[in-house]
Amino acid sequence: MKVAVVGLGKAGLPLAAVIAEAGLDVVGIDVDKKRCKQINDGVNPIPEEAGLEKLIKKYGGKTLIATSIYADAKDCTFFVVIVPLFIDEQNNADFSLLENAFRNVGKLLKKGDCVVLETTVPPGTTEKIVKDWLEKESGLVVGDFYLAHSPERIMTGYSISRLKEFPKIIGGVDAASGQKAYDVYRYFIGSLSLVSSSRVAEFVKVIEGCYRFTNIALANELFKIALELDIDFYESQKAANHEFCHIHLPSTGVGGHCIPVYPWFLIKQMKKQQKEDYTVVLKASHTVNEDMIKFFSQHIIQHCKKINKPLKKVRICITGVSFRKGVKSIYKSRSIALAKYLEKLGMDVYVYDELYSKEEIEQMKLSFLTPDKADVVFDPFTLKIEILK
Amino acid sequence: MKVAVVGLGKAGLPLAAVIAEAGLDVVGIDVDKKRCKQINDGVNPIPEEAGLEKLIKKYGGKTLIATSIYADAKDCTFFVVIVPLFIDEQNNADFSLLENAFRNVGKLLKKGDCVVLETTVPPGTTEKIVKDWLEKESGLVVGDFYLAHSPERIMTGYSISRLKEFPKIIGGVDAASGQKAYDVYRYFIGSLSLVSSSRVAEFVKVIEGCYRFTNIALANELFKIALELDIDFYESQKAANHEFCHIHLPSTGVGGHCIPVYPWFLIKQMKKQQKEDYTVVLKASHTVNEDMIKFFSQHIIQHCKKINKPLKKVRICITGVSFRKGVKSIYKSRSIALAKYLEKLGMDVYVYDELYSKEEIEQMKLSFLTPDKADVVFDPFTLKIEILK
Repeated sequence: MKVAVVGLGKAGLPLAAVIAEAGLDVVGIDVDKKRCKQINDGVNPIPEEAGLEKLIKKYGGKTLIATSIYADAKDCTFFVVIVPLFIDEQNNADFSLLENAFRNVGKLLKKGDCVVLETTVPPGTTEKIVKDWLEKESGLVVGDFYLAHSPERIMTGYSISRLKEFPKIIGGVDAASGQKAYDVYRYFIGSLSLVSSSRVAEFVKVIEGCYRFTNIALANELFKIALELDIDFYESQKAANHEFCHIHLPSTGVGGHCIPVYPWFLIKQMKKQQKEDYTVVLKASHTVNEDMIKFFSQHIIQHCKKINKPLKKVRICITGVSFRKGVKSIYKSRSIALAKYLEKLGMDVYVYDELYSKEEIEQMKLSFLTPDKADVVFDPFTLKIEILK
Repeated sequence: MKVAVVGLGKAGLPLAAVIAEAGLDVVGIDVDKKRCKQINDGVNPIPEEAGLEKLIKKYGGKTLIATSIYADAKDCTFFVVIVPLFIDEQNNADFSLLENAFRNVGKLLKKGDCVVLETTVPPGTTEKIVKDWLEKESGLVVGDFYLAHSPERIMTGYSISRLKEFPKIIGGVDAASGQKAYDVYRYFIGSLSLVSSSRVAEFVKVIEGCYRFTNIALANELFKIALELDIDFYESQKAANHEFCHIHLPSTGVGGHCIPVYPWFLIKQMKKQQKEDYTVVLKASHTVNEDMIKFFSQHIIQHCKKINKPLKKVRICITGVSFRKGVKSIYKSRSIALAKYLEKLGMDVYVYDELYSKEEIEQMKLSFLTPDKADVVFDPFTLKIEILK
């Protein structure tokens, strides 16, 4: 069996590598030609991903062929699509990358083939829009081919072990699709459960994100209250957590491609169905997470006032720009939001991140400074603030 | 060492019994004389509490003496207070039972004695009001005596195993108090951690409740969304949960002495400190949990419409009246709230609960009916609804 994996990003490439490791032939498709060449040369483009280097070295250019041309996957019978889904300024899902991927896959589709969507999507997407795209482009209908959803559950840095050990779910647009996709996925996924439909599989992944989104908001709220009551939040959180209690860690809000995105799938859908009152906790959580920028700005400015300098001359350095420590991505980065907000307040703000060069930071329209040159240093990952003498 | 335990309720009596089992002499104080007599006769007044019967039989009236007279505890040197703290109609804490207990303990207090508060209270209570009451009544000051807080973490039905195995915390109003109370508690508590202050210990217990409060609200919200999207919530919740995801179960809201009460300690305190915007998620969670009554009323009425009878003649039976299945207590019972709400809508509502007699239910100004006589049966614990033909 030959498998096509569409999208060789932070989620797609580890999956493609794990499928190759299971002994299957893989054609990986990605628009980024430079990345494809790297992979075919056995070079790992995601150095922060533990264990990936070994696999790319072993299979890249051999049983894992990367290409930018869909036609190179024409003799594949199993297709996995794992391209990003972003949300726009109004928090609406932008399906354009998914549409492009599926329309191209649809053109290659033959009777008996199976397609699995891995990208996290609003509930109903696979059985409605994805099915439509594939049927239109292929001239086939579900029944001629199989269609399922298995939401990725990776975490950059741990993706290989996640694919090998972490519980993963899969669900079809019909029973035959679910079973077919499940049977193939079991070759390379360590812990797999079949759920009753693709819609359930979609919902499962989205509510997992909502759980984190809300619990981060709760942690942020409790963190602020603890400060107000002169209580050590971290000591309290550690002492409170046990088998039935899982209070999260506070933060400057939620960043990245997942947590800040998924709740909007439900908020927008309920709005469409005139059930806006069904997303009260999710919207409150959004408010709290968003407001952490204002909160930490004030917190930082309080510290700046302790420096013997005019306030607007105090050099603030935020030591992190990526959305998560150690992951080179700035999608919905809270540190950038914080820096821009402090700038708007007229403060003298700089950023530093060991993953980014001075040039890369300046391309973001931010000022670069090493923390030793600053007066006040804020670490957006630990929330620690330091005054340098 | 002789230990006094003030309050022999669902939390106090199991604790008193476990202290007696550890080989210490215990004087248990409770206003309820009938209950005291039962205990001294070796009869367990809380049958739903696994393992308690054996202990009361063995120690009741022997090394565990129950009394309604504080003076009977005059030669005790260690005092534990574990009486209820309710909230009033405006959700303000009502300290009257605590005040009465501590003023009475204060009158008995001698140099070197140690007092521990077990009741969950707003952060700051032990070091401020409790300390004041004790100092005023005893004429001593902290330093002469020790004062600490160790919030109960029991769950009716599992209290004995909770006391023996579950992580418990303790913190003093000063370092000496914390250490002293910790050293004694280790005799009878299986897993104990000393935290840095009574204020932290108070906060720990309150935020544990806030975690449950918010996560129940989130589960309720996601349950309604799942219904709207024609998705099985329970299948999804089971598939979503893993090591890092703990989506709770939906409900008619939150009842009992703990979960609906503790968030108000923080909401009210922040309001006092003019930080109302620090409790956005907690207040949203309250709204969602409260609104489940309206939601299930509509849900039940939808089912009533399927019965071939005038709507207001359809007999609805709610099969549960206690705040939690198997616990005989109706404090903040959601089933009562639901029954009253349906009544207000003009529906013909009855309740049934195997823990309560017809007379007890009628005392609550509710109508009693066995479920087999009803047209529509709603189980408030499983949320299942059934139409009887």
